[in-house]
Amino acid sequence: MRPSHLLYGLCLGAGLLLAPLIARAENGHDLWLRYRPAAAGEAAAYRASVGVVAPVADTPTLKVARAELEQGLAGLLGERRDGGGQILLGTPGSSPRIAALKLPLDAAGDEGFRIRTLTDGGRPLTVIAANTDIGVLHGVYRYLALIQTRQAIDRLDLLDAPKVRYRLLNHWDNLDRSVERGYSGQSIWDWWRLPDVKDPRYLDYARANASIGINGAVLNNVNAKSDSLTAPYIAKAAALAGTFRPYGIKVYLSARFSSPIEIGGLKTADPLDPAVRAFWKAKADEIYKAIPDFGGFLVKANSEGQPGPQDYGRTHADGANMLAQAVGPHGGIVMWRAFVYSHEQPDDRAKQGYSEFKPFDGQFAENVIVQVKNGAIDFQPREPFHPLFGAMPKTNLGMEFQITKEYLGFSTHLAYLGTMWEEVLKADTFAAGQGSTVAKVVDGKLHGYSRTLMAGVANIGTDRNWSGSQFDQANWYAFGRLAWDPEASSEAIARDWAAMTFTPDRRFTGPAVKMMMGSREAVVDYMTPMGLHHLMGRSHHYGPGPWVAGGERADWTSVYYHKADKAGIGFDRTASGSNAVAQYAPPVAAAFSDLSKIDEKDLLWFHHLPWDYRTRSGRPLWDELVNRYSRGVKAVDGMQATWADLSPYVDAERHGEVATYLAIQRREAQWWRDASIAYFQSINGLPLPKGEAPPPLSLEAYEAMAFPYAPGI
Amino acid sequence: MRPSHLLYGLCLGAGLLLAPLIARAENGHDLWLRYRPAAAGEAAAYRASVGVVAPVADTPTLKVARAELEQGLAGLLGERRDGGGQILLGTPGSSPRIAALKLPLDAAGDEGFRIRTLTDGGRPLTVIAANTDIGVLHGVYRYLALIQTRQAIDRLDLLDAPKVRYRLLNHWDNLDRSVERGYSGQSIWDWWRLPDVKDPRYLDYARANASIGINGAVLNNVNAKSDSLTAPYIAKAAALAGTFRPYGIKVYLSARFSSPIEIGGLKTADPLDPAVRAFWKAKADEIYKAIPDFGGFLVKANSEGQPGPQDYGRTHADGANMLAQAVGPHGGIVMWRAFVYSHEQPDDRAKQGYSEFKPFDGQFAENVIVQVKNGAIDFQPREPFHPLFGAMPKTNLGMEFQITKEYLGFSTHLAYLGTMWEEVLKADTFAAGQGSTVAKVVDGKLHGYSRTLMAGVANIGTDRNWSGSQFDQANWYAFGRLAWDPEASSEAIARDWAAMTFTPDRRFTGPAVKMMMGSREAVVDYMTPMGLHHLMGRSHHYGPGPWVAGGERADWTSVYYHKADKAGIGFDRTASGSNAVAQYAPPVAAAFSDLSKIDEKDLLWFHHLPWDYRTRSGRPLWDELVNRYSRGVKAVDGMQATWADLSPYVDAERHGEVATYLAIQRREAQWWRDASIAYFQSINGLPLPKGEAPPPLSLEAYEAMAFPYAPGI
Repeated sequence: MRPSHLLYGLCLGAGLLLAPLIARAENGHDLWLRYRPAAAGEAAAYRASVGVVAPVADTPTLKVARAELEQGLAGLLGERRDGGGQILLGTPGSSPRIAALKLPLDAAGDEGFRIRTLTDGGRPLTVIAANTDIGVLHGVYRYLALIQTRQAIDRLDLLDAPKVRYRLLNHWDNLDRSVERGYSGQSIWDWWRLPDVKDPRYLDYARANASIGINGAVLNNVNAKSDSLTAPYIAKAAALAGTFRPYGIKVYLSARFSSPIEIGGLKTADPLDPAVRAFWKAKADEIYKAIPDFGGFLVKANSEGQPGPQDYGRTHADGANMLAQAVGPHGGIVMWRAFVYSHEQPDDRAKQGYSEFKPFDGQFAENVIVQVKNGAIDFQPREPFHPLFGAMPKTNLGMEFQITKEYLGFSTHLAYLGTMWEEVLKADTFAAGQGSTVAKVVDGKLHGYSRTLMAGVANIGTDRNWSGSQFDQANWYAFGRLAWDPEASSEAIARDWAAMTFTPDRRFTGPAVKMMMGSREAVVDYMTPMGLHHLMGRSHHYGPGPWVAGGERADWTSVYYHKADKAGIGFDRTASGSNAVAQYAPPVAAAFSDLSKIDEKDLLWFHHLPWDYRTRSGRPLWDELVNRYSRGVKAVDGMQATWADLSPYVDAERHGEVATYLAIQRREAQWWRDASIAYFQSINGLPLPKGEAPPPLSLEAYEAMAFPYAPGI
Repeated sequence: MRPSHLLYGLCLGAGLLLAPLIARAENGHDLWLRYRPAAAGEAAAYRASVGVVAPVADTPTLKVARAELEQGLAGLLGERRDGGGQILLGTPGSSPRIAALKLPLDAAGDEGFRIRTLTDGGRPLTVIAANTDIGVLHGVYRYLALIQTRQAIDRLDLLDAPKVRYRLLNHWDNLDRSVERGYSGQSIWDWWRLPDVKDPRYLDYARANASIGINGAVLNNVNAKSDSLTAPYIAKAAALAGTFRPYGIKVYLSARFSSPIEIGGLKTADPLDPAVRAFWKAKADEIYKAIPDFGGFLVKANSEGQPGPQDYGRTHADGANMLAQAVGPHGGIVMWRAFVYSHEQPDDRAKQGYSEFKPFDGQFAENVIVQVKNGAIDFQPREPFHPLFGAMPKTNLGMEFQITKEYLGFSTHLAYLGTMWEEVLKADTFAAGQGSTVAKVVDGKLHGYSRTLMAGVANIGTDRNWSGSQFDQANWYAFGRLAWDPEASSEAIARDWAAMTFTPDRRFTGPAVKMMMGSREAVVDYMTPMGLHHLMGRSHHYGPGPWVAGGERADWTSVYYHKADKAGIGFDRTASGSNAVAQYAPPVAAAFSDLSKIDEKDLLWFHHLPWDYRTRSGRPLWDELVNRYSRGVKAVDGMQATWADLSPYVDAERHGEVATYLAIQRREAQWWRDASIAYFQSINGLPLPKGEAPPPLSLEAYEAMAFPYAPGI
C-alpha cells in the first residue's frame, strides 16, 4: 500500500484536480486505508478542527502513528491544514502535555484510547491519548476512520478499548507457500527468501491489521510441519515479528505435536514424558530468545489425522498443559483447537467436539485457550452455534471463525460474513439464563475467563487485492471489528467498510450495504437452505455435491448429512435421533427440538422430515426447498442489478472486477440450484412446483463435472 | 504497469517536481517501460523534434501503438510538446499520407518498421511506418527506447526487422498455478478464474513482450496435462489470446502426446493410428475455432518419463509430423523438443539428443521445428553449444534458452544471461566452414530453414517485479532482444536495459553494465568452474551437491558428471572416452579434444585429468580450481561494492532489494566454494593452496543440509 499511497499523496500535493482519472487506476491493494480527498467543502470544514500534528516521543509505534496520521490527513484533506488547530498524540508517560491534561484513561486499558477535543489558547486541540503506544496508534486509525466515514470530529470525547484480548488471524499457510483453503494466490509469507528479504507487503499487512485492532498472527497452517519450529524457520518468523512489532502484532506458530520425534530426535511425543517436556521447554526458550514477544502456539491435535496426546493415551488437557508450561514463563499462551473427530467414533460428528472437551472443563492451564469453531461441523454457510459455548465455564474458550470462504463460494462469490458471525455471537446459550450470548462467552463476561480470544482463518494471499476479490476484504475488516467488539453491529461495520473502501457517498453506501447484508443469506439459499449442510463437492468443496457418498469415511460425504430418501430429508439430532440437541442448555435444546418453535433456517440440521411436511409458508417442504434455491439465484440477480446501478460511484477497474465476479456467482448459483434439485428429485421423484424451471442438464451431467485444479486443497 | 503509469502520467501533468520522492516508491513492476521524465534540458531538446502524434487508423494494434506513444512521450517529455512537430504512425495500406511518402519498406517484412525524420511544411515530421500494424507498434517501442536511452532522434532513418520468425516464451506453468523451475511466485495465468476474469497483468505482460519483439507464448508446461486441451481450458487460452492479439502475441500450447487416450477415449496414442490422427485433427480444428490465430503445439515426448511415439515403436518424426498435419492447414507449427534421454540408454547423456535426432534429418514436415537446448546436458552455467546445431541442415532447428535460473542461483543470484547466450550464439559450428555460427543456424541463414525459432523458458511469475528480482528482468529483456537479432551484442543490450530500467545516467550504466557483464562468469566460477557441470543439489538444484550419488538413475547424480577420484576429475568425452566430441564438426571436435587448444573454460567437460595437471596459469589443476572458486566469491564482493556505490542513482526500494539479494548471493557463493572444496578435498586428499581459507564446516555438515521447501520443483 505504501507506494501507491505515497504517490497519491504527492499527486494531491501537486494539485487536486486528478481524482476522477486516478479513480480509474485502483486495484484494491489499499484496502480500507484509502485516504482519498474529501470534497472541497467537507475538507474545508474538517481542516478547521484538524490542524497540524504535534511532534511525538521517539518510539517506533508513536513514529508510525504520527506518520500514518500525517499521511492520512494529507490524503483526505490535503497537505496544507493551517487552520490553527493541533493534534496531540501520545501517552501520559511519554508526553508531559498529555500527562498535564489528566485525561481519564483507566478504561482504555492496554490497547484502547481516548480521543478528546479541547481548546488550547483559543485554538482547537484534538488529543489522541492512551496508556500505551499501541493504544495511540489504534486511536489514530479511529480518528482517520471518522473522517473517512465523514463523521463530525469537532466535538469528540470517544473512549474505546477492545473487549477481547487476543484478536488473531490464523494463516493456514504452508511452508511451500501454498495456502490450505486459500483463494487469493500464494501465501504472502515468502519463507524461501526470509529472513533476508522483507517484502514491503509485510508492512502493508501489519498496517492493515493494526487499523482494525488485530494484534496477532499465527503464521503457519494448523496442519503443521515440524520444520516451522527449526532454527531457520524461527529466524524467518523473527524477521516477520520485527516488521510487525511497531504495529502491535505478535507472531504465533502452529505447533505439530509430534515435533519431539521429527526434529527432537526422541522416540515419543508423550506429553508426560520428561524428555518430551524438556524438548518443548527448550524449544520455547529458543523461540523466545529470537522473538521476545512471541505469542504462543496453536495446536490441532488428534484431529483429521494430526498427531496428539491421545496417541499416547493422554488427554487434550495433558497435551495443552505441557505446552502451556513451556511458554507460560515467557508470557505465552496455547490455543488448543476443539475441532476434533475421530475415525473410530461412529457417533454424530456434530457431537464429538463437545463430547471430547466438556469432561475436561477446569483441567486446562490458565494460559490455555480452547479454540472452538463457530459451529459443530465445519464453517458451513449456516450452522447453529457450537454447543461448547456456555458449556465450559472453567475453561477459557475462544472463537474460531473462517474468513476465507471454503464453503461459501471461494473468493468468487460475494458473501459478507459479518451477518453470519453476528448471528452466532448474538445466539443465546442460556448457560446462565437468558442473555447468555455467545458474545458474552467469548468476551469473558459470562464466565470470567482470564484470557479471551477471537481467531479468524485468514483470506489473505498474494493477489494484488489481498483477498481474491474486492468484497472479500470486507470479511477481513469485519472480523477485526468483531474481535475488537463482539457485540458490534455487522451492518454498521459494513457501512464503515463500504465508505472507507469505495466512497462515503450515501448513494453508494446505502445500496451497497443492503446488498452486503443480504449476500450471505443468498448463498445459504442457493447452496444449503433450511439447515442443510456440507453438500459441497468432495475434498475441494467447490460447487454442489449432494450426491457425494462412499469413500474413506461416512462423515466426509454429503449423504451422511442430508440423509435424503424417498420419504424425507434432514438429520435427526433430537432425542429420537443422535440427540445432539442435548448438548445445548435445556431452553435451547427444547427450542431446537420443537418443530413449532425452531427457526426454519435450522430445520433440517435438527430434524428429518417428510417431503410433504407443511412449512410455515404453507408450502410442503419440497416446494419450500425449491423455492429457496430459486430465491437464492434471484438474490444474485438483484445484487447484479444493484452493482450495475453503482457504477457512477466506483472506479472502472474495481467496478468491472466486481461485476465479473457477480456474473460468475450468478452462473454458479444457478448451477447449485439446478444440480441440487436434480439430485433431490432423483431421490424423491416429486414434480417441481409450478413455475419452477427444470434443471437444464441431467443429474449424471452434474455429477460428471470434475475440477482437478480447484484451488485451496 | 497500467495503473502506476497512468498515475504517473497524471502526476507529471500536475507538476514535475516530484521525481525524487516518487523514485522511492518503485517496486519494479514497470520493467523497462519506465517513462520517467528526462532532465529539463534534454526534454526540451527532444520536444523540439517530437511534437504531437497524428491520428491513426482505427485498428486495435494501431490504437495501442498511438496510446503507448502518447503515454511514453507524456512520461518522458511531459504533456505539452507544442514545438510544431508531428509524429505520423501507420502503414501505407491504412494511411494515405504514409503511402504518399513511398518509403522503402520491403526489408521491414511482416514485423519490422522504418523510422524516418522528414520535414513537412518546414516543420519536423517523424514517420514510424511498417507494412503491418504490429510493425508500427514495434517501431513505436523502438522510438521510445531511443529517448529512454537518450539517443538523438532529430535525424533518423532506421530500418529494423526481426531475423527470427518465432520468438517465443515457454511457460513451464502448471494448471494448478505452480511453475516448474519458477522462482518468482505463482503462474501469472489464473486458470481458475479464466476466462471470466482477465487480470490486468495479462495486458501488462503483452505490452512488455511486444516492446522487445516477443511474438508468442506457450502457456503451459512442457510436462503437460491433457486437461489443457479440453474445452474449458481452450476457452481460457482463448481469453488470453484475445488480450494478447493487439500486441502481436500468439498463444501456443504444450500438448501431451497421450491426450488421445486421456481425453479422447482412445486406447492408443500411436501416431500412425487413423483414430489418433483423427483425434488430433479434430482437436486442432476445435482450438482454431476458438483461437483463429493459434500458434501451434510444443511437445516434450519420450523424455523424462513423458509419453511419445517411441512408446508405439514410432519415431520422433512420426509423432511430430502427425501433429504438424493437424495444425498445418490452419497455419500452425509444431515445436518438437530434442531434449531426450532414455532410461535404457547407458551412453553419455550428452550424446543422446544428437543420436536420436540426427538420423531423421530431412524427415520432419516443413512446419515442424525441432527445439534444441543451447547445450547437450541441461541449462548449466556453462555448456559447449549443442552438437545438433549445424548437424541438421534439412530440419528446421530452433534454439531453447532457459531464462529462469534453475541452475544459476534461482532468482536470488544476480547473473546476466545475455553473455551466456551470446557465447553460444557466436560459437562456430564449422558446419559449412568457418563462420558457421550457431546464430546463423538459428536465424536460418546457414541452412535456409523455412521456419526459425528462438524459445526462452520464462522467468515470469506473480511477484510484483515479475521475475523475482530486479536484475532477472534483464534476462527476459535480453532474451527478447537476442531472439529479434541473434547477432546482437549482449553488452549493448545490457546498457539499454540498465538505462531504461534505472537511469540513462552513465555514472550508473557504466558500472552497472560492467557488473552485469561479469556476473555469469562469477556464477560459473563459484559453482562449476572449468567445464564442471550438474553438481547442484538433487532435484531442487539449489546449492552445491557434488556428493550426489545413487538413486534412480546415474545421470541424475553429480558423480556421473564430475567423475572425481583420487587420481583426477572430469568427464572424458574425447575418443578415449565417450567420444561425444565426434558429434561436432571435425575442426570443433579437434579443438575440444586437444588439450593445447581447448579453452580451459570447457576443460573438464571434455577431459578427465589428474589433479596435478598443469593449467595455463602454471598452477596444478586442483589449485586452479580452488583459485576459481575463490575468484567467484570475490567477484560477488565486487558486485556488492559496485552496487553500494550506485545508490545515488537508484530509488531506495529497488536499491535495497538488490543489495539484500547480493548479500544472499555472497553468502551462497561462499557456501558453494566451501562445500565444493570440502567435497573434492575428501576425494583427492590434497592440501589447499597457500592463502586459501579452509571450509568452515565439515563435509558432513554440508551434505546434511536439506531444503524441503525449495521452490520450483
